[in-house]
Amino acid sequence: MDFPPIREELRGLEPYGAPQLDVPVQLNTNENPYGPSAACADDIAAAVREAALTLNRYPDREHVALRAALAAYLSRDTPHGVTPDQVWAANGSNEVMLQLLQAFGGPGRTAMSFAPTYSMYPEYARDTSTTWVQGRRAEDFSLDLDAAREAVERERPSVVLLPSPNNPTGTALPPEAVGLLCKAAASYEPGGLVVVDEAYGEFRRSGVPSAVELLPTYRNLVVTRTMSKAFAAAGLRLGYLAADPAICDAIRVVRLPYHLSAVTQAAALAALRHAPELLGRVDELRAERDGCVDWLREQGLTVADSDANFVLFGTFADRHAVWQGLLDRGVLIREVGPDGWLRVSIGTADEMMAFKQAMTEVMQTVAARTLGMEAQA
Amino acid sequence: MDFPPIREELRGLEPYGAPQLDVPVQLNTNENPYGPSAACADDIAAAVREAALTLNRYPDREHVALRAALAAYLSRDTPHGVTPDQVWAANGSNEVMLQLLQAFGGPGRTAMSFAPTYSMYPEYARDTSTTWVQGRRAEDFSLDLDAAREAVERERPSVVLLPSPNNPTGTALPPEAVGLLCKAAASYEPGGLVVVDEAYGEFRRSGVPSAVELLPTYRNLVVTRTMSKAFAAAGLRLGYLAADPAICDAIRVVRLPYHLSAVTQAAALAALRHAPELLGRVDELRAERDGCVDWLREQGLTVADSDANFVLFGTFADRHAVWQGLLDRGVLIREVGPDGWLRVSIGTADEMMAFKQAMTEVMQTVAARTLGMEAQA
Repeated sequence: MDFPPIREELRGLEPYGAPQLDVPVQLNTNENPYGPSAACADDIAAAVREAALTLNRYPDREHVALRAALAAYLSRDTPHGVTPDQVWAANGSNEVMLQLLQAFGGPGRTAMSFAPTYSMYPEYARDTSTTWVQGRRAEDFSLDLDAAREAVERERPSVVLLPSPNNPTGTALPPEAVGLLCKAAASYEPGGLVVVDEAYGEFRRSGVPSAVELLPTYRNLVVTRTMSKAFAAAGLRLGYLAADPAICDAIRVVRLPYHLSAVTQAAALAALRHAPELLGRVDELRAERDGCVDWLREQGLTVADSDANFVLFGTFADRHAVWQGLLDRGVLIREVGPDGWLRVSIGTADEMMAFKQAMTEVMQTVAARTLGMEAQA
Repeated sequence: MDFPPIREELRGLEPYGAPQLDVPVQLNTNENPYGPSAACADDIAAAVREAALTLNRYPDREHVALRAALAAYLSRDTPHGVTPDQVWAANGSNEVMLQLLQAFGGPGRTAMSFAPTYSMYPEYARDTSTTWVQGRRAEDFSLDLDAAREAVERERPSVVLLPSPNNPTGTALPPEAVGLLCKAAASYEPGGLVVVDEAYGEFRRSGVPSAVELLPTYRNLVVTRTMSKAFAAAGLRLGYLAADPAICDAIRVVRLPYHLSAVTQAAALAALRHAPELLGRVDELRAERDGCVDWLREQGLTVADSDANFVLFGTFADRHAVWQGLLDRGVLIREVGPDGWLRVSIGTADEMMAFKQAMTEVMQTVAARTLGMEAQA
């Protein structure tokens, strides 16, 4: 007997996740480099203390107060407003995605996206036994809209996953792309959902709208968000979606009862009350990001436009050597995305200085060792 | 287009969950009636405050400190001890079960249990597209060991779910049942896991051992626990298992990355430091439970032996009328289990007094209305 009797297709697979290394400059998982203030931590602690006094009781399964607070927060991004019954939250947007695929994907159904894109998507599909189909993006990582529409009409997916901004490439989708694919996914029976993953939405460049604006127009549109990135609360594990209330009702059938703890609900509500502070660094991070894009281009590298708090750059004949060179200098970035590219998260001004200095040294070393770095203007 | 395009087999289903009603005496979800002390809430809040200061960072994916604390706690129940690499935790034991079925169940595989049993089990199977097979318990809700072994050998399940004590009937399994079914599940290829769900394990009657003792003997044995019941922390959503480390490694492939928040890890660690207090009411609740069993039998009702913090009693020709009668008197119990039976959770002495008084009134009323209550000695 092969022990343990894990499913055949999982045997020998490595768990998903970036290396958790103890390095001075951590620019690998797109965290916000700024932690909550002492005042914010105090408020979270006070809210959790209150919840802890009745910790013997199960939490509100419907997380009504939290959904109302998230709806109010999302309403900033759309003239149409968002109501609490349009909102659903879970332990990280990855649990939201899993629930969406449990309700709308599954055996005999298909989920699709366009590569290069977020590498967890095929894992959500695998873990829900949903067939996974992947289209391709253009050379510059943009979506070829005609090709994407044709692919959706051909594959008839139940769920289309569209990150905007895309991860790891960084660029947001134009609103017409969302509309076009929502229409395409409504053109066959029983129809598909288009999930616009705005995990990094708050970092988008000025003038780029959120897909939240399109919710009244396309009822098969789902927009997901997280408190892990701009909101500086990766440790809280709070993701959420906005969609037609009937979609939230469908998720309710597959969610585990009491999936969101009383502690999580209390802490998230407290963090939302501190939104101005927690989001206060977003403008600074966007400026730092734009500076990073410019600097990398000045070094002769190719850089994707970024609406996120990370930048994808390349191309390197041996990207691992560059990644390792940076790590040797105390800077951890991510070896992810198409071959030859690397992704750096946007940290503090000091961290970005350390990254640039390490990059300068590594590029000289790599060039000297003639490892074949190809600089493309 | 039928909107939304939910999977056919989920269409029209109601979400799982007991009614969340605002009633003075809540004896319906097997919560511990005693909340944490102010000192315990303070300690949880202090731990969460510490975690909140670095909330911008992702939590420890491997929840190493928490697994060590849970291993130390479980080691009380076995002379062999439990090591951290034998432990895995998630957001409630229902997430543990989902992960087990994602890794070891799934399409083309079977999970089984013996009815009447916990009504979430078929939902875990449904949500992971695992075939669900249900054997039967004997008339007195015990397991017929020969029949159970034959059923396992015939159905060749990948996962056998065995609650001990069983929910909603309340009786623990004899250790020989666990051993017999572990051997049966190891007798075919690729073999199955036997999951002994000890959600209510701490309430077992004296002399009843935990299946944790059997872990060194059967490597296909998994024992699950929760902090929701005896530990008085239902609002925390913390479930865990103990098993061969290779089983934890398999779960790691399917778990969502960072599934346990930094806040949850910190709060659970703090709660575990207060184990003597939180578990301090277990003896009192067991005494109250034994008193409740005796009292119900004195009323001429049939009552299953209970190793849990709830009691199943009956039988009633119209159990809904009894349930409603209690609710009308401010006492919420659970209409669950085989037809004709009702389940009451063990509350405080005052709550149990209120239950007994309401039951006395309801039984008189129901008898007067000749609704046909069948008292069976």
